[in-house]
Amino acid sequence: MTALHTTPEAFQQHVADCGERLGEAILDNISPSKSQHNWLEQLINRTISETDFRIQALRFIDVLPSLDDDQVLAEHLQEYFSNLQLPRIAEWGLKHTDAQWVTRIAAPTVRYTLRGLARKFMGGHLLHQAMTSISRLRHQKMNFTLDLLGEATISETESKAYQLQYLEMLDKLSEPVSNWNQNDLLDLSHSSNSPRLNFSIKLSSLYSQIQSVSPQYSILAICEKLRPILRSAIKNNAFITIDMEQYDIKNIVLGCFTKIIMEDEFKSWPHIGIAIQAYLKDSYDDIEQLIKLLNNRATPVTVRLVRGAYWDYETVIAKQNNWPCPVWKEKNDTDYNYEKCLTLLLNSQHVIHTAIATHNLRSIAFAIAFTEKLNLNKDQFEFQMLYGMADTLKPALVSLGYRLRIYVPYGETLPGMAYLVRRLLENASGQSMIDSGIGNNIKPINNYTFNAPTPPIKTTKFKSIGNHSFKNMPLLRFIKQQQCDDFKNNLLKVSEHFGENYPLIINGEKIYTEDKIESYNPSKPTQLIGSVSCANHTYADAALKSAVETFSSWKNTPVKQRADYLRRVASLLIKKRMEFSAWQVFEAGKNWQEADGDVCEAIDFLNYYADQAELILKGKSIDVSGEYNHINYKPYGVSLVIPPWNFPLAILCGMLSASIVTGNTCILKPSSLTPVVASKFMQLWQEVGIPDGVINFLPGPGKIVGEYLARKTEINIITFTGSLQVGTKLLSIGSHIQPGQNHIKKVIVEMGGKNAIIIDNDADLDDAVLGVVHSAFCFQGQKCSAASRVIVLRNIYKKFVKRLIETTDSLTFGSPEKSHNLIGPVIDKIAYEKILKTIQNARLFTTMYNYENGNNPDNGYYIKPCVFVDVDPSSPLAQEEIFGPVLSVIEADDFKQAVEIANNSRYALTGGVYSRQPSHLQYARDNFDVGNLYLNRKTTGALVGRHPFGGFKMSGAGSKAGGAGYLLQFMHTYCVSENTLRRGFAPEPDN
Amino acid sequence: MTALHTTPEAFQQHVADCGERLGEAILDNISPSKSQHNWLEQLINRTISETDFRIQALRFIDVLPSLDDDQVLAEHLQEYFSNLQLPRIAEWGLKHTDAQWVTRIAAPTVRYTLRGLARKFMGGHLLHQAMTSISRLRHQKMNFTLDLLGEATISETESKAYQLQYLEMLDKLSEPVSNWNQNDLLDLSHSSNSPRLNFSIKLSSLYSQIQSVSPQYSILAICEKLRPILRSAIKNNAFITIDMEQYDIKNIVLGCFTKIIMEDEFKSWPHIGIAIQAYLKDSYDDIEQLIKLLNNRATPVTVRLVRGAYWDYETVIAKQNNWPCPVWKEKNDTDYNYEKCLTLLLNSQHVIHTAIATHNLRSIAFAIAFTEKLNLNKDQFEFQMLYGMADTLKPALVSLGYRLRIYVPYGETLPGMAYLVRRLLENASGQSMIDSGIGNNIKPINNYTFNAPTPPIKTTKFKSIGNHSFKNMPLLRFIKQQQCDDFKNNLLKVSEHFGENYPLIINGEKIYTEDKIESYNPSKPTQLIGSVSCANHTYADAALKSAVETFSSWKNTPVKQRADYLRRVASLLIKKRMEFSAWQVFEAGKNWQEADGDVCEAIDFLNYYADQAELILKGKSIDVSGEYNHINYKPYGVSLVIPPWNFPLAILCGMLSASIVTGNTCILKPSSLTPVVASKFMQLWQEVGIPDGVINFLPGPGKIVGEYLARKTEINIITFTGSLQVGTKLLSIGSHIQPGQNHIKKVIVEMGGKNAIIIDNDADLDDAVLGVVHSAFCFQGQKCSAASRVIVLRNIYKKFVKRLIETTDSLTFGSPEKSHNLIGPVIDKIAYEKILKTIQNARLFTTMYNYENGNNPDNGYYIKPCVFVDVDPSSPLAQEEIFGPVLSVIEADDFKQAVEIANNSRYALTGGVYSRQPSHLQYARDNFDVGNLYLNRKTTGALVGRHPFGGFKMSGAGSKAGGAGYLLQFMHTYCVSENTLRRGFAPEPDN
Repeated sequence: MTALHTTPEAFQQHVADCGERLGEAILDNISPSKSQHNWLEQLINRTISETDFRIQALRFIDVLPSLDDDQVLAEHLQEYFSNLQLPRIAEWGLKHTDAQWVTRIAAPTVRYTLRGLARKFMGGHLLHQAMTSISRLRHQKMNFTLDLLGEATISETESKAYQLQYLEMLDKLSEPVSNWNQNDLLDLSHSSNSPRLNFSIKLSSLYSQIQSVSPQYSILAICEKLRPILRSAIKNNAFITIDMEQYDIKNIVLGCFTKIIMEDEFKSWPHIGIAIQAYLKDSYDDIEQLIKLLNNRATPVTVRLVRGAYWDYETVIAKQNNWPCPVWKEKNDTDYNYEKCLTLLLNSQHVIHTAIATHNLRSIAFAIAFTEKLNLNKDQFEFQMLYGMADTLKPALVSLGYRLRIYVPYGETLPGMAYLVRRLLENASGQSMIDSGIGNNIKPINNYTFNAPTPPIKTTKFKSIGNHSFKNMPLLRFIKQQQCDDFKNNLLKVSEHFGENYPLIINGEKIYTEDKIESYNPSKPTQLIGSVSCANHTYADAALKSAVETFSSWKNTPVKQRADYLRRVASLLIKKRMEFSAWQVFEAGKNWQEADGDVCEAIDFLNYYADQAELILKGKSIDVSGEYNHINYKPYGVSLVIPPWNFPLAILCGMLSASIVTGNTCILKPSSLTPVVASKFMQLWQEVGIPDGVINFLPGPGKIVGEYLARKTEINIITFTGSLQVGTKLLSIGSHIQPGQNHIKKVIVEMGGKNAIIIDNDADLDDAVLGVVHSAFCFQGQKCSAASRVIVLRNIYKKFVKRLIETTDSLTFGSPEKSHNLIGPVIDKIAYEKILKTIQNARLFTTMYNYENGNNPDNGYYIKPCVFVDVDPSSPLAQEEIFGPVLSVIEADDFKQAVEIANNSRYALTGGVYSRQPSHLQYARDNFDVGNLYLNRKTTGALVGRHPFGGFKMSGAGSKAGGAGYLLQFMHTYCVSENTLRRGFAPEPDN
Repeated sequence: MTALHTTPEAFQQHVADCGERLGEAILDNISPSKSQHNWLEQLINRTISETDFRIQALRFIDVLPSLDDDQVLAEHLQEYFSNLQLPRIAEWGLKHTDAQWVTRIAAPTVRYTLRGLARKFMGGHLLHQAMTSISRLRHQKMNFTLDLLGEATISETESKAYQLQYLEMLDKLSEPVSNWNQNDLLDLSHSSNSPRLNFSIKLSSLYSQIQSVSPQYSILAICEKLRPILRSAIKNNAFITIDMEQYDIKNIVLGCFTKIIMEDEFKSWPHIGIAIQAYLKDSYDDIEQLIKLLNNRATPVTVRLVRGAYWDYETVIAKQNNWPCPVWKEKNDTDYNYEKCLTLLLNSQHVIHTAIATHNLRSIAFAIAFTEKLNLNKDQFEFQMLYGMADTLKPALVSLGYRLRIYVPYGETLPGMAYLVRRLLENASGQSMIDSGIGNNIKPINNYTFNAPTPPIKTTKFKSIGNHSFKNMPLLRFIKQQQCDDFKNNLLKVSEHFGENYPLIINGEKIYTEDKIESYNPSKPTQLIGSVSCANHTYADAALKSAVETFSSWKNTPVKQRADYLRRVASLLIKKRMEFSAWQVFEAGKNWQEADGDVCEAIDFLNYYADQAELILKGKSIDVSGEYNHINYKPYGVSLVIPPWNFPLAILCGMLSASIVTGNTCILKPSSLTPVVASKFMQLWQEVGIPDGVINFLPGPGKIVGEYLARKTEINIITFTGSLQVGTKLLSIGSHIQPGQNHIKKVIVEMGGKNAIIIDNDADLDDAVLGVVHSAFCFQGQKCSAASRVIVLRNIYKKFVKRLIETTDSLTFGSPEKSHNLIGPVIDKIAYEKILKTIQNARLFTTMYNYENGNNPDNGYYIKPCVFVDVDPSSPLAQEEIFGPVLSVIEADDFKQAVEIANNSRYALTGGVYSRQPSHLQYARDNFDVGNLYLNRKTTGALVGRHPFGGFKMSGAGSKAGGAGYLLQFMHTYCVSENTLRRGFAPEPDN
């Protein structure tokens, strides 16, 4: 056999031989068809083969555990499946959803089905059931590893509970398994006994505040929770494998593992391992890094090589965010990488023990052949497979004398659903771990089964959105430490420029005034960020004159050129993205990710409006014989741009770039709270050589600059984002025709919100609580899109409120300079005092949670996110915009009432619904009156081009920012109709 | 030979034989190539074969006679041809348009070329030149008919001049031709001498106010002018043929002919004829009618059977207006009809002498064969051909012993251009008369040349505009007497309902109030058209309550249903179009065509907005992996609709239907000057069963109803069309947020205009003068789109003003009940007195023409259209909207200054330019600031869907009515973003 491996062809022949042996063993060990599973297999087969059915079935399975009420369950059943072809009996049922049928037949049948499904893939939901499952496996000569179901936790209460469960399990199971009879095949590893007790653990369950932006902080927090478990494992002679999860936390998981295994306490403990996902492009490098590290450790650890179970998720998330896809897109490439990684692992016996976790016949045959090539004993590695999957393969491997460990999830059905769906998806996907089918459905083994995968070719690119080239700027993913370090360096670099002076810019001229606007850090109000020159009436007049005089040349500048100025600023901003984010961290109190989001949005506005302007200004033709009609657009004149402080770059940039790309000149009056970010941005326009007078930069007090100019006859457009009070005043000013005024001013106002999220009885609470918390509290609730009311249906109210309060309480909180702080200060002292006053007043009447009277570091304007419960929907708390981290919870009897409560507001900006009932989602689409409605996601973070943003009622009068119609507001439409008929002849029209 | 015609096949053989004889004769008579014509043939060949070149060449030829200045000529040359491949020398020239080249080479060369072209197709531009041409023809044994060039006249001054020219020609030529030697071939017809002097005459030149809507009036006026010419023809022994022109006046021309030939004075005069166009589908029937009539006439007349020379024009005009195409679309069909008509004519020898006017070899061969079949002598018919066309065919026919008459146009080059372009077009068209080429380019005669044309199959349908099914409602063409009679009957029918009472309609309930709005006929102010109930605050409150309460059900009515209500009203309106027009004739003082235009526009608004609403409310999707984004629209609530009186149906209908089809309910306050038309329209909505409360009909005073409601918090949309004063007041009211108001009101205002038309130096004055007169004076200038300033460039100023004044003076004027009156009364006493006062004031400073101090019939509010010249562009006359038949003429130094003057206005609604210089048209597109710019056509009559209508500056704040964006103003946009990713799986997006 040793002679076999002299050439690749010889080795490939060896793999094929191993495969043949495996195939024979499968046939020898096949068990007779279990007829009681037929219905289940039918269901699963359909899930695999029919796309529409799969989507609905998986979604239904997902929601099912939350449906306690039979009638509600029947409604869901009907709504999910009424458009699909179903067996006749089921169809009959769907048409007759009377109470009788529902309670007697539908609900029990469906629940029985789900239990069947769950039982197929899970080892039970109670510990004693799991014990039975693993005992049965022992009889089948298979080892186990137990996985306590439970995905990411969302609060520290939950994380602590999860940790305790593990500790309890370790204590409880230790003794029973130690009483089992010795079985060398199962018990011996590397010639000595290894622990029978074996757990797989997901680190995301141990700490609720993991953030990729703060890896070190997260690693420290997780290790803190992990150590007691490892200590108990040592004490109870158990083996612990750290599971791998989503790519976002991969480096944190690896970081925890590499940190803890090198700690003195655990450095010589052999019974620990980690999973590595072969579908990740990073995985080979990760293994290499690990090997380097392990060379300094006395004792080997185990690596479980899996393919990876989040392929759909990783692909979708990467696409959504325009991130490079971290997983191999082709199954072949994953297969190839699996073997490459396996080769590396098996070649590193001195430091790594390998667990070959796969159901792929080729991979298994490859592993057998390769271990034979290396002359490894069968106790020097093991195979691993999932409970309920590839059940014909398992006895075959055992019969060939290989160690096999079964991954057995157990726990409650609700957290188990995510696991179940993943298993079903894998069965449906051509990409994932399985290709030997499930149950008795074995794919026939043929000549191709054992062919070697080929090296990956190259990745394909993502499609851009819509029919033009615009692509959203991807947010920083903060996966690599380098990004975090760069960001920190930018904070440092920026801080060296604190306190500098910034000028007005009028007609290209920099003017430094005596009078200054001083901008301070809200996290440290003594820290002066910068001093910005401050305009008065004289400067306002000069700016207006400049804008008026520049208009005729700027409007006649070809749109391509105007758009290119935007694109050039976008390019600069991309280069300086972290610098601009850093300024916002200091001047606006944004955390890293919020600051980065703001910069990306600004980049998006520039690129999107540049594209849109070129597109729109092509105009449209309506040709008729003898007549050529062309519809096109012309700028109004001078645009007065008054942006807010809360998106000091993005919104300013959107309003400004829309004004000028359409050919208007503009006067920009930035917020006096964030004038430094605005000044820095002005520098970019100067850098790209925007002609003098196109943008006149005029920081100053609202009354003296904004209102004064708004009244001027020469102003054509007033574009404002900010408070209701100022917005309505500008509306009124703008609509009053001044003597000598020759046009009607266009007033575009975007104002406040009192945004509500509705939590339906069947909501996915893991998602819903997190979504609400992020919508309400990120950037301290200082977004016009922020949620400030959550309306919860009666049946789920208590459960939701409990988790909401726990989750809110877990949020990290402090100076945004530190990346682990999710929540920072509010913008200034006025806001701070106003919000506190609101809280104090409301407390007199309403129960509040989580409030802490600050002992604020550096006297920063910190307000801990707080939750008011059982709020009266008509109280000021539920009616007035607070613009701070304050959330009101309101109870509703039913969904319709919830929508009514939500609509009971002067505002109509954003709204959210967490529901999995299709009819309720449709009801919300039709009746929830908001400009941006978000279903099953947070209500903030609208993306340019994808989520055109803006509201109505008192939230605004303007079309959607970042949407196709936005630019039209900055231009009037004109139609040129040319008679092309002369002397009886006319060119043929084009259409 | 007589045996030949027993079968169709035998006759066809006979035709082929005749063709062969003809072919031989052509070869026998061919003359050697005339090299001096080579360049001309090249040019013409290129015009024939290259579409782009043809368009530019014909347009250039069209404009050339107006270019006196060499530099301007060179500019045109460059602008017309710089994008085309030209001979190298010309290209060189185009690149070197320095003064030297221009004056020394380009201008003389071009003018020489044009003269060459003109000389080819015309008999000279002075009478003695024509005399030379016809003498030469006599030597070539050909007869002539002289056509005095000159198309339709636009004023009675011109018509009279034209008539005098004919009379002069008759007197002057009579003697010279009588001195010619006798030539029996030429002089004998039906065995006796016929007049040598022969004229063809276009009746449109004899009367400038021909209108198809008033055929009898036009016929009387024309005959009045024609009789002196016929008398002179009798006296001078001349033959007169009445030419046939455009289809629009065909029945008027036929009417004149049939009237005058039956008059005692002319009943026995044989030397008169008429042309009949075989390309018209009507022509066979027209001949039959003529034969019937001629059976009662003692003496035959001559019919000249032509194919018809306006094919391109007729086709384009029919397409533009959605009228059935009057001409055969296929050449074969015209050929077929030609032979069919010819057969009928030749079979009617007893009453008709036939002139076979064709260059088509098959038609000629057919005629020869058929006359042989009938055993006609060669002096019992004649052939006719055009001067300069088919020059190889002519001697062939003469050599075979046939009488041939040549149609010889003569006259000034400028009016000759239309004729020249028609000739060149014919050479390029596969459709038209010619297919034997020109000059020496004979198409080879082959087996197919003499094949018989086949019966027409069926006509194809017109394409609809754009990508939906909407088609503009065709205006009444008033070609058939029946339409005129129907209209008259409707006037009668409607008049029987004068003085009736009309109710308010609130929530479907008809309410007759004590207080009434009385509506009188502006042509006869004592005539009460109707009494309409008048609302007060109480009724306004009730209407508002009804609209608010109906909103929730109406907004939830599917858009398809809402759109179908509009479509059903459109259907009713189509049925009752003349009735609705008749009401407008009486209530608004519109003439028949203006009234019909208004009704058609209303129908268009209904159908267009119905389509648009369905289209828009499909929404738009932006799909991303794991995310489904849908952008859609929701109604605001209650729309207050305040339309004007000047388009009492169309604009009201547009504003109303846009409001409701989008899901808003509405309160309609019609103008108090046209409440009867509005009431009648409301009846249609009741008839189609529009739900109660959707439209609340609330006539009443503006202050008490309009302003009162505009202030109400429950009003969401104010949509107004009318005066600047009221519009700006509503804007201001609408933007003031009332206590408790939970939304920003949408105020859509369309206000006035002070619209200008620019007349460039190279303008086609025939078109320009008519376009200005119609834009300024139709419906008495009471359109917001009406022209009230005309800005004329210096070089053409005097010429233009003269023709403008003459044309204005020629306009028919009086009660619109009579269809021949183009101009009627202004709307009411207030308007009448205000306009008169404006005129009186302006007269003190400015020269005025055409004003007459009325002795007005029935005390109608008539104001004769008047023209002020040399107006100061900044004077009140040139700045204030008059809304009456008053036009100011302003002189400009150059085109740029003309645009400056045009833009010097508070308004920016419509504007027009008459120019044939491409760079000037482009300058106007870029710099003439108006919502609707019309190039080389009138500035009124915007069509729904084709000319989205509306202005800016103080003309309006709203998007274009009848355009794709209009409905968006009645809805707010919302975006629903659904996270479709659940548990890591998501359906694939559609895109």
